[in-house]
Amino acid sequence: MQLQLHTPLDMHLHLRQGEMLQNIAKCSSDFFSGAIIMPNTVPPVTTKEQLLGYKREILNNTSGFTPYMTLFFKNDYDKTFLQSVRDELTAIKLYPAGITTNSEGGVSGFGIEELEPTLQAMSELGIPLCIHGESDGFVMDREAEFMPIYESIAKNFPDLTIIMEHITTKAAVETLQKYDNLFATITLHHLYITLDDVAGGMLQPHLFCKPIAKRPEDKAALQSVAFSGHEKVMFGSDSAPHPRDKKESCGCAAGVFTAPVALPALAQIFEQNGALDKLQAFIGDNARRIYGVQAPEKTVTLEKKPFEVAQTYGGVVPMFAGQTLEWSVVQ
Amino acid sequence: MQLQLHTPLDMHLHLRQGEMLQNIAKCSSDFFSGAIIMPNTVPPVTTKEQLLGYKREILNNTSGFTPYMTLFFKNDYDKTFLQSVRDELTAIKLYPAGITTNSEGGVSGFGIEELEPTLQAMSELGIPLCIHGESDGFVMDREAEFMPIYESIAKNFPDLTIIMEHITTKAAVETLQKYDNLFATITLHHLYITLDDVAGGMLQPHLFCKPIAKRPEDKAALQSVAFSGHEKVMFGSDSAPHPRDKKESCGCAAGVFTAPVALPALAQIFEQNGALDKLQAFIGDNARRIYGVQAPEKTVTLEKKPFEVAQTYGGVVPMFAGQTLEWSVVQ
Repeated sequence: MQLQLHTPLDMHLHLRQGEMLQNIAKCSSDFFSGAIIMPNTVPPVTTKEQLLGYKREILNNTSGFTPYMTLFFKNDYDKTFLQSVRDELTAIKLYPAGITTNSEGGVSGFGIEELEPTLQAMSELGIPLCIHGESDGFVMDREAEFMPIYESIAKNFPDLTIIMEHITTKAAVETLQKYDNLFATITLHHLYITLDDVAGGMLQPHLFCKPIAKRPEDKAALQSVAFSGHEKVMFGSDSAPHPRDKKESCGCAAGVFTAPVALPALAQIFEQNGALDKLQAFIGDNARRIYGVQAPEKTVTLEKKPFEVAQTYGGVVPMFAGQTLEWSVVQ
Repeated sequence: MQLQLHTPLDMHLHLRQGEMLQNIAKCSSDFFSGAIIMPNTVPPVTTKEQLLGYKREILNNTSGFTPYMTLFFKNDYDKTFLQSVRDELTAIKLYPAGITTNSEGGVSGFGIEELEPTLQAMSELGIPLCIHGESDGFVMDREAEFMPIYESIAKNFPDLTIIMEHITTKAAVETLQKYDNLFATITLHHLYITLDDVAGGMLQPHLFCKPIAKRPEDKAALQSVAFSGHEKVMFGSDSAPHPRDKKESCGCAAGVFTAPVALPALAQIFEQNGALDKLQAFIGDNARRIYGVQAPEKTVTLEKKPFEVAQTYGGVVPMFAGQTLEWSVVQ
């Protein structure tokens, strides 16, 4: 059995910089037509020069791949600046300060007045806002506690396209459906795992991520919207490579590296849930409509043939390392 | 400021075997008069010969320390056997199969009929039952889901002393108070941490344990009964050493090693909560009454003086490694 995916997109990707980028960019560009590139580099991407430099670095290390560039949200981006970078910019990513890897320079207050200057300019220029939606509360409650902020932004900026990134809860799935201008990405790993997989048996650092995987009923809610091909949800891997010694150590960094396994693992879980016909919507069609992007055509053929996942790709341990998936990419 | 603790007891301790035991037994015997020794060795302690051999091994590696020995629960211990071992036995520990380290041979069904032969004999002989109370459900729900089993055993064997081991939830604190024959141990780490400390920032393998640390309201409930000196709760460290490479790796083993820091860390948190006068009840008096044990007298003096916790003791990384506690043991 074969399956053709047309112009697959990864709407949430961490490619890092320098040597790590050189080692792992191919794991995305081999399989995806393009991806939204997260700006939480060191330092974060906040100027046109950085954005163009980072884009160049990505293009130099990939082929046939469109990096959709983003800026790291700041309260004081003015309209003139955003206009000057508009042609190179696909979205702006908002991080609460300190909530995840390299997010120290993020936002510490979510009052509409504080956010208004940048959000108003974005709304007028039609620049989508991507949000890492977590409070600084108890780890299992952080996403649910952020819902009022999503609602407040959605209400106050009805023309702004808002992406709830890597949603992990039933609460987020419900909020998503309340406002026309809310959309969401869902990762591969949150379709597969709950906290049980991270900490229910032995502790599994390679499945430790932010937001942390939640409860079985949360996973079921994510699966439900993904497997139905819901028009407001898109695949965003949040694939986040860390060197092995930063994962298997005291104080493991958050992030699951899924780029090399994403398409086969998605095909497997969509098929197992009788939703293979909805994968095309999830993996590209919805994203193109929500973002209005036109990625260069690229067809990726998958085949139902065992795929033995390697222990590392580019030196990074992927999800399903050493395991066998049911689908392979025909190369 | 000084504080004298009279005959402190650790009512839940893992000393392991062989080289590990030789390396870490002193971390308990230096500070405690005695401890309930968990029987989940490899193989588990199920015969009189094993029990006496293990006791000898502990005595050979400690001084001034009473190991209160336990058997690993089996459904088919008969009264004759239990009578023959009664003088050497302080309690029997029941593990659900596969729920934690070396518990593969534990119980798989909790029907009263299955448990009845051993429990009836224990009840008649006055042998306390210690239970690791977790279901095989979602990791955050496992303890709460076990409450009906505690209740069923407590109701069916009203003369049996039942210890709910290392309780971690508000649900367990509530159940504890419903039956006269239910008692509980509380660990050091569950008085200090929630899941946030394990997985809310970086992943902290040295704080990963079973039962996993729960929510803030659960910690508050445990603190409330411990700091009030509640007569049904006792200190049980569940100190569980693992080699460093089993903790800081892919698939980290569950267990927090607290023996070397337990008394100073308890003094600190009891003092911070205005409960220093209740520590003696928690650290020994309640246990002596509940178990009816008479440990040899031993006075341990603590002083409010900074204690720099080492990176390892006996090669094992302790809780608070490299941190400074406010209290020291006067040696």
